[in-house]
Order: sequence, then C-alpha cells, then structure tokens
Amino acid sequence: MTKTIEWIGDELGQLRLLDQTRLPTETHYLTCLDVEDVWQAIKRLSVRGAPAIGIAAAYGVCLAAQETSRVATQRKESCLEACDYLATSRPTAVNLFWALKRMREAIERITADGNEEQLAEILLAEARTIHDEDRQQCANIGKHGADLLSELPAGGGILTHCNTGALATGGDGTALSVIFELHRRGKQPKVYADETRPLLQGARLTMWELMQRGVDATLICDSMAAQVMREQRVQAVIVGADRIAANGDSANKIGTYGLAIVAKHHDVPFYVAAPTTTFDLSIESGDTIPIEQRTAEEITCGFGKQTAPDEAAVYNPAFDVAPGELITGIITERGVIAPVSQEKVHRVVKN
Amino acid sequence: MTKTIEWIGDELGQLRLLDQTRLPTETHYLTCLDVEDVWQAIKRLSVRGAPAIGIAAAYGVCLAAQETSRVATQRKESCLEACDYLATSRPTAVNLFWALKRMREAIERITADGNEEQLAEILLAEARTIHDEDRQQCANIGKHGADLLSELPAGGGILTHCNTGALATGGDGTALSVIFELHRRGKQPKVYADETRPLLQGARLTMWELMQRGVDATLICDSMAAQVMREQRVQAVIVGADRIAANGDSANKIGTYGLAIVAKHHDVPFYVAAPTTTFDLSIESGDTIPIEQRTAEEITCGFGKQTAPDEAAVYNPAFDVAPGELITGIITERGVIAPVSQEKVHRVVKN
Repeated sequence: MTKTIEWIGDELGQLRLLDQTRLPTETHYLTCLDVEDVWQAIKRLSVRGAPAIGIAAAYGVCLAAQETSRVATQRKESCLEACDYLATSRPTAVNLFWALKRMREAIERITADGNEEQLAEILLAEARTIHDEDRQQCANIGKHGADLLSELPAGGGILTHCNTGALATGGDGTALSVIFELHRRGKQPKVYADETRPLLQGARLTMWELMQRGVDATLICDSMAAQVMREQRVQAVIVGADRIAANGDSANKIGTYGLAIVAKHHDVPFYVAAPTTTFDLSIESGDTIPIEQRTAEEITCGFGKQTAPDEAAVYNPAFDVAPGELITGIITERGVIAPVSQEKVHRVVKN
Repeated sequence: MTKTIEWIGDELGQLRLLDQTRLPTETHYLTCLDVEDVWQAIKRLSVRGAPAIGIAAAYGVCLAAQETSRVATQRKESCLEACDYLATSRPTAVNLFWALKRMREAIERITADGNEEQLAEILLAEARTIHDEDRQQCANIGKHGADLLSELPAGGGILTHCNTGALATGGDGTALSVIFELHRRGKQPKVYADETRPLLQGARLTMWELMQRGVDATLICDSMAAQVMREQRVQAVIVGADRIAANGDSANKIGTYGLAIVAKHHDVPFYVAAPTTTFDLSIESGDTIPIEQRTAEEITCGFGKQTAPDEAAVYNPAFDVAPGELITGIITERGVIAPVSQEKVHRVVKN
C-alpha cells in the first residue's frame, strides 16, 4: 500500500512523500530533509490536493524544528520562518494557510508554556494530529456523501474532475471518499474521470486510485463531460475544492466552473466535497480568491513532447471558481450544506 | 508557403499532403501514390478538417484512375471501388461523402458520354474544381463572417476550438477564415485557441496558423474556456462543423457542445462557420449524425508518454453535436443563417 505522506522516525525524522508527478508509471518516493525540500515538493506538485498540501506543510515545519545545532530560541525562529516560507509555495488552497496557522499557534503555545526544549516533539505531535484529523474528516465526508447519494441507482454514473482521493488528502479523499464509500456499500458506481488538463491528475492519479480499489472507472477528456451528460451516463458530479468562500463559492482545479455550468444545463446535481478546513470565511465570495497562474510549459510541453509552436502565448490559470448557485450541495465532515447559502455555510462551518 | 493538399503533375500525377500529425515541430509532406495511401492519411488524421478530407478523397479517386495497366472499364470500376473504400475512412464529416458522390457522378457522366479514355483527365478536373470551389467558399465565409462581426470592438476577443483554417480546407478556412478576414480589416482580433484534446489540433495547428499570419493568439486548455468567458475576455465564439443537420444541429470536434453551453451561460454569441457542403439535409436533427469513436491510446498515450494506468478504460468520442438552439448563427459562403431554424437552413442551403 502506497502512502501519500509519511513521517519516518520520531521528532528527529524525515518526511517521505509519494512523488505524484511520476504516477502512474513509476512509484517513487521523495525524502524531504529540510523545509526547502518540502516547499519544492509542494511547488512542483509532487504533493498536491488541498488537504495533503496542508499536512505536508505542517510536517515541513517539524523539519525546521530539528535544527539541533541551534539553541531553542533560534529553533523557534526557524519554525516561524518555515511557516512564512511554506505559505509562499502555492496561493489558492487555503488548507495550506490553515495548517500553517495551526503550527504557528502551537509554536506560540510552546513558548508561552516554556516548553521550548520539547519544540520538535510537540510540533510533530501537532502535525500528526492535523494528519489524523484529516483522515477522520475524509471518512466522515465519505459517509455523509454516500448517505446523500443513497438514491443513486446501483451502477449509477458519477463524474469527477482532478484528483480528490488518498493522494490528495490524509485519508481516503474528499469527492473520491464519497465514491469509495458508495463502492463499499455495494452501489457499484460507474465513474467517469475527467483527465484534467494540463497536468492530467484525473488520468494519472484518479484512474490509478479507482482502478486500484476495483471501482468501475472510465477516462474521458475534460471536453467530453458535456457529451457524457447528454448521453445520460452520469447522475451526479462530485468534485473537491481548494478554497470555499463564506457564500459557498468554491475554487477548484481549472475546469470545475465549466463543469458546473454543463451539469446545470443537464439538470445533473453538482456536489463539492471538502472538509471544513477548506472554507475561508474571511473571504465573502469567490471573486477575491487568489487564482494561481502557472507556466506555459505545462500546456505546451506537457507530455514530454512540444505540442505548440515555439513562443506560443499561453494563459494557464490553475483554478476557477464554481459559484454557490451552481452547486447543489457541499459535503463536509459535519454534514451537507444544501442549498448553498452564506447562512448555511456559517451554521455548519463556524462552530 | 506550405500547402495542405497539392496535386503534383497532370492526370498521371500524385497527391502531396502536409502531414498534420507532425506539426508544429516538423514540416513533412506525404506523397500518396494510391488510394490506400489516401485512406490511411485520412484515417490517421495526416489530413483532417471536413472540407480538406473531401478534397483529399476526391484526389484519391484520381489516383485510382491512373491504373494504366488496366483497360478503361476496369479503371472505371477501380474508381467506383475507390469511392466506396475512401468513404469508410472516417464517418462523421459529410464533406467526404459529398465529394465522393460528386466524383461518382462524374464517373457515370464520363461513361454516359463515352469518354472513358479521358477518365483520369476529367476526374482530375473535377477534383480540382472541388478544391477551387472550396477555396472560394472559404473566402466568402470569411467575408460574411467579418461583416457579421463588424461590431466587434478593435482588439475584441474571439474563442475558437480545434482547427478550421488553411490546414482544414482548400482555402483560408471556415471559422479561421472569418478571423483572418477580421485581421485583414484591421480589427486586430485577440484569439483564444482551445488546445482541443485529445489530438491538440488547436495547440498544434490553429496556434501555428494564427502565429504565421501575425494574429494575436493565446493558447488555453479546453477546460479554461468558461473561465476566459467569465473574465469577459471574448465577445464571440466561432467554430467549424463536420456535419450540419437540416435543423442546424452541428456536429463538430468533441468539446464544441460544452463550449456552446458555456457560451450561452455567459451570453457570448456562438457561431458555426461552414460551407453549404457541410450540410446534410437528409438528416433531420443531430441525434442521428454518426459519431466516430477513436482509440484509447489517443487519450492515454497521446504525445509519446503514457499518462494513464495500463488498461485504463477510455471513452473517446471524436465529435459531439451543438444543437441549433445554442447556435447564434451559421456562417456559410451564401450568407448567415440566423436565427437557426430548419426553414432558414433550407432557404440558404437548398438552392
């Protein structure tokens, strides 16, 4: 069994990440020995998926706590600097900032309690807790989602986008956790996976996870989703999220917004599955969620071969925002937000 | 200047095709010496685009007429067999069947007139006429389309899908002909080109054509079109078509249907540009247009690298149908059909 994120050893350990850029053809692990290794791994998407990014960053702070050559106050400074630095790795997924805020609070608490000598130990415990909590949240999202979709006929179709499984989280995933739970309950869902250009997380990662677990999975290009819906092959769409605003507007992998529009056009319910850690109540609507722009080469030389003319101009936003009004419901570990409204979001998330 | 389709020599000549599978990084020509060469070139998309397929097939029949070792009646049979065989190369674009029907009629006419000895010569003249007529149709589509879009502000944005330019036709193209004409008229259109998975005709071919002609072009993934519209970067969508039913439903490269839905959602006008040879009035609506299914490898190993797990199940329809009600207007060489209705289609096409 492959492990997406694993801390090896005790507080003087190292972080082992499954290098997701090399899946599905190679199973290769990266060993991160310092904060820079973790920053790079997040930046180049060796680890990706909003919850997984948060967990990896939390462990990244633990690596800063290991600088044993330094005195305790310097180690504390290193950890705070690590929090600031890791926060610059990617801009959209809010779980990153949420996890780092939690690590920062732990650092301050350790200082306040005079426990600087146990800095590394206590921070590792905190990172492990974040990891464990996410695992539990995934399980609960799966249960709430499967309950919600209990009316899905056996063998019913579900369409998903990008990767939202065990590779994207500390547990079984968000949207994929719902699918795995339906599968466990004997629903035999028939899943259509968007390949998810430009980086093909759907083709490379989601297909890999679904096939490993014996779920009936069919790969399509992103541009085929509308046709699949027209042919009535799917009864629901479930996607993950990278940041959800207070009104339910949900930023997710580019293509999600268009998918929400075509689902609406076909009266196919469109669900977002995400833990409450993905909500950012400080942001009123999706309009102000920062959208990461990535390099042209992801599109022009994505498959090991140049597929566009030299110096082609490229626009490559990594995310878009599905507005709350296009979302049938948001499946969280605490229950389902439906219909999506600021008030309902507040009631479920803020407690 | 590269030439998409060129007959080299007289009636004992050969067909030279620009191998579009190798663009944009390699400019390589294929020489077709017999019908089989042409069938293969169409099948593997070395030549593609509805009008270009029709033209290539017409020249393909001329190659059958060259079998000088045979007596005249055998040559005639070879030509009729070539028509039947070439019709099996691809199922969706109706121009293929239209051009072959025209060649078949020419063969029968030659027989009726007792001109069997001039078979090769007369068939070549017919193929050249088909080619020339398409060139003129492209020019007229460009003019009608540019007139239609005369209100487009200078520097206005246009989004297009797949390739519909000089590589897809005997002239300047269909949708791209409109863009080239706007460019000639000094409108400085800013074009967003969908890369068009799986075979990336937008990235490889449309970007190449637009950049060669100095048109401001930006490449996006298909999944980014909705976001580009939300950001109000485009004021119109123009695409081509492979077959248009009597009611205006338009089959075109997979992704067109979803694009039409997201354009509607953003109140962006959605135009189809196609010669009247692309209409199939024998088909009442898009529901019965045959949709070509292509191999899994186009999606899983598209560009020299495996990007999905071994034995991943794939659904790969090459086309979809934008229903007439999502189409603002159909730009033909005879004028614009708008709003799209069976009656208007009939009035423009059937005369």
